[in-house]
Amino acid sequence: MENIKILLDESDIPRQWYNLAADLPTPLLPPLGPDGKPVSPDMLAPVFPMNLIEQEVSPERWIDIPDGILNILYRWRPAPLRRAVYLEKHLDTPARIYYKDESQSPPGSHKPNTAVAQAWYNKEFGINKLTTETGAGQWGSALAFACKLLELECKVFMVRISFDQKPFRKIMMQVWGANCIASPSNETNAGRKVLEEMPDTPGSLGIAISEAIEEAVTDSTGKTRYSLGSVLNHVLLHQTIIGLEAKKQLEKIGEKPDIVIGCAGGGSNFAGLSFPFVADKINGAEITIIPVEPTACPTMTRAPFAYDFGDTACTTPLLAMHTLGHAFIPPPIHAGGLRYHGMAPLVCQAIVEGLLEPRAYHQLESYKAAITWARSEGFITAPETSQAIAAVIEEAKKAKEEGKEKVILFNYSGHGLMDLTGYDAYLSGNLTDYELPEEEMQKYLQDLEKLPKAEMRKSGKW
Amino acid sequence: MENIKILLDESDIPRQWYNLAADLPTPLLPPLGPDGKPVSPDMLAPVFPMNLIEQEVSPERWIDIPDGILNILYRWRPAPLRRAVYLEKHLDTPARIYYKDESQSPPGSHKPNTAVAQAWYNKEFGINKLTTETGAGQWGSALAFACKLLELECKVFMVRISFDQKPFRKIMMQVWGANCIASPSNETNAGRKVLEEMPDTPGSLGIAISEAIEEAVTDSTGKTRYSLGSVLNHVLLHQTIIGLEAKKQLEKIGEKPDIVIGCAGGGSNFAGLSFPFVADKINGAEITIIPVEPTACPTMTRAPFAYDFGDTACTTPLLAMHTLGHAFIPPPIHAGGLRYHGMAPLVCQAIVEGLLEPRAYHQLESYKAAITWARSEGFITAPETSQAIAAVIEEAKKAKEEGKEKVILFNYSGHGLMDLTGYDAYLSGNLTDYELPEEEMQKYLQDLEKLPKAEMRKSGKW
Repeated sequence: MENIKILLDESDIPRQWYNLAADLPTPLLPPLGPDGKPVSPDMLAPVFPMNLIEQEVSPERWIDIPDGILNILYRWRPAPLRRAVYLEKHLDTPARIYYKDESQSPPGSHKPNTAVAQAWYNKEFGINKLTTETGAGQWGSALAFACKLLELECKVFMVRISFDQKPFRKIMMQVWGANCIASPSNETNAGRKVLEEMPDTPGSLGIAISEAIEEAVTDSTGKTRYSLGSVLNHVLLHQTIIGLEAKKQLEKIGEKPDIVIGCAGGGSNFAGLSFPFVADKINGAEITIIPVEPTACPTMTRAPFAYDFGDTACTTPLLAMHTLGHAFIPPPIHAGGLRYHGMAPLVCQAIVEGLLEPRAYHQLESYKAAITWARSEGFITAPETSQAIAAVIEEAKKAKEEGKEKVILFNYSGHGLMDLTGYDAYLSGNLTDYELPEEEMQKYLQDLEKLPKAEMRKSGKW
Repeated sequence: MENIKILLDESDIPRQWYNLAADLPTPLLPPLGPDGKPVSPDMLAPVFPMNLIEQEVSPERWIDIPDGILNILYRWRPAPLRRAVYLEKHLDTPARIYYKDESQSPPGSHKPNTAVAQAWYNKEFGINKLTTETGAGQWGSALAFACKLLELECKVFMVRISFDQKPFRKIMMQVWGANCIASPSNETNAGRKVLEEMPDTPGSLGIAISEAIEEAVTDSTGKTRYSLGSVLNHVLLHQTIIGLEAKKQLEKIGEKPDIVIGCAGGGSNFAGLSFPFVADKINGAEITIIPVEPTACPTMTRAPFAYDFGDTACTTPLLAMHTLGHAFIPPPIHAGGLRYHGMAPLVCQAIVEGLLEPRAYHQLESYKAAITWARSEGFITAPETSQAIAAVIEEAKKAKEEGKEKVILFNYSGHGLMDLTGYDAYLSGNLTDYELPEEEMQKYLQDLEKLPKAEMRKSGKW
């Protein structure tokens, strides 16, 4: 039973984050305003504190992690690296499968790695309140947790249908002292406007983002800012502690990964694990790096690389990324998480550079993988994470066919204890696969025609 | 941040369980039949496999843990010992507070320590199916998990009101492949009889036990047995791995506990942590050992030591224990877990011997402690565990008043992610305290008059 858990001492926790922007073969395309001109850091100041804006645009390869952040991360970090010996046995594969276990943080996912960092930098900057939006509540609960430990006020706009139908994440936020309200709400102009027109709307992430940003920028004391849980460069940066720890853990037992896998919704857990290995690949290492998404939301595998808004409500700067169009939302039949129309610009640029090999799975395949996982390894995974496990199983089977002792590393980004209704639907035969029809995708993509740099989408050049 | 997580290598996992029965100052009182005569091991053979019955009555101090069991426990064991530095800081106490984290097992509690062992011994004995009952589902999910990993069939009779109102643990059981049905069911004589008389009954643990035992003993192949999640000697034995690990971990950093605390419903998580320290106390060490219960179910703090049935339906042998009477069930207003009318005989005999100092808390005090914990340490605890935390906080405050650097150790027996509705009720002000009225208690205790050795209750002698 040697090496089924590879642990790091607290003293071996990484002291710096890794910034892939410093090593990408071509420079990262900047965010643009609606006029097509690059957004200056100052323009973001009402939304984010300047110390995080500096990280967002930093060209530095390594950025120090402050002790105040490490002191909170120590609660559950360094996270264990585990070897999936029971899945290996079940698959009868010569592959050695390792997973970085991010499910043991108090909110149950990788999200607090950045929630804690963002709350800490905001506090350092003199901010006393953060606002954010949340869908099913994973991000909202992570930020509520971080704000409580750093004694910041936290207000979460939660999409109304989740607020009503999935009360458990809401209760978690309340346990951690956050003010979680259903969006659209009567507390912002954006919310009131929507409620006037559609009093019975189930809400959407786009509306919730608009409300959270409005609440932040209209605070007359200037002490409120907005916080985002994925997509942006500084968020991905904070997650690289995952991959940096995993690297140390693999080195400890003399292993090097041949394949690195993570699921990608906005891109932050995938980037967190993989970017330190992308750096190795840039420096010549032979590694296959696979971001995985659902066929219901095929951003990386089918959508063009283009400038688009980060949110449905068109309030953010334009980001250069693979995008299905800002109005795209996967159909309700899709239960397997990962519902974002775009993808982190850093991840997308790495795809364009040929460093990553994105892949998509149907949700039935992913739930099947989740059940295989629960019945061999014993843990119940988040539906998002099961997409990664589907790819792990495919690669482990391939290694068996080829008779190769491949080393596979993946990110176990969260547990599924708050997502059991999806399992229930799967086990009861109430889920079906869904593939976005080409015509529908093109319909959403038309929205991009009116935006700056629209020619990028068709030419593939910039 | 030194020593906030004290980890053991896999190679340091205990290889033997500790049996307190070998060291108790007076021998354990035997279980009795309804005729008042000791139950022989053979009489239990239709219910449990003989290898577990041997453990139940074993006088040996140390019992080897088979490798087949360790190979499964390695998934999450050795469990971390953590220091609650953030709670210490919040309370400004000179006490050093350590907790054994049993919440990170796949089912989220200490329960799989015995579920895995029981499934393994049953399999070894040639059994291919286990039955059990479950209330809210913590035990049922642990046994489902263990049976899946050992390839045994598992059937769980779940109290109907929980089956209908708390579907998540049921889904967990299904993810692990168990057959979980609402009790009373149409699948047993016991169930059918109840349904005929009361078709709309919410069910009870007593009925579910009767169904599970009937299903086991009536299997004509002889390959089915019944499994219990607490109370019995062999169950407590399997849990001692918790305290044995904790002892090694404290030794590693040169600490010895002054106070050991655990919540006690049936007694297994408390016993698991504390019994190795009870042994030290028997050998002269100065340790205060505190089992904690709710005032709504004051078994150890107010009930007599007497022979009573282990179940509401009066199908088990009579056990010598503190008991509120087998018909007692706490009122629905009690949300904080720990609802059993009796207590493990080994724990009770240690109380009678003066080795333990039981204590009871109101549920509002316990939920208050749970919120303090979540907002300082960051983790959301099971309502049962919060009873232990209430005692920890009281002892840490006392240490502050006395200016003493006490070392407090407690068992963090499970997370509260499946119990968030209790938190919601508390935060919404919908919970109240409840103390069992003396007259009501005496009413339930009258049932004991008709049982063998009834004089024990009043004389306190046997």
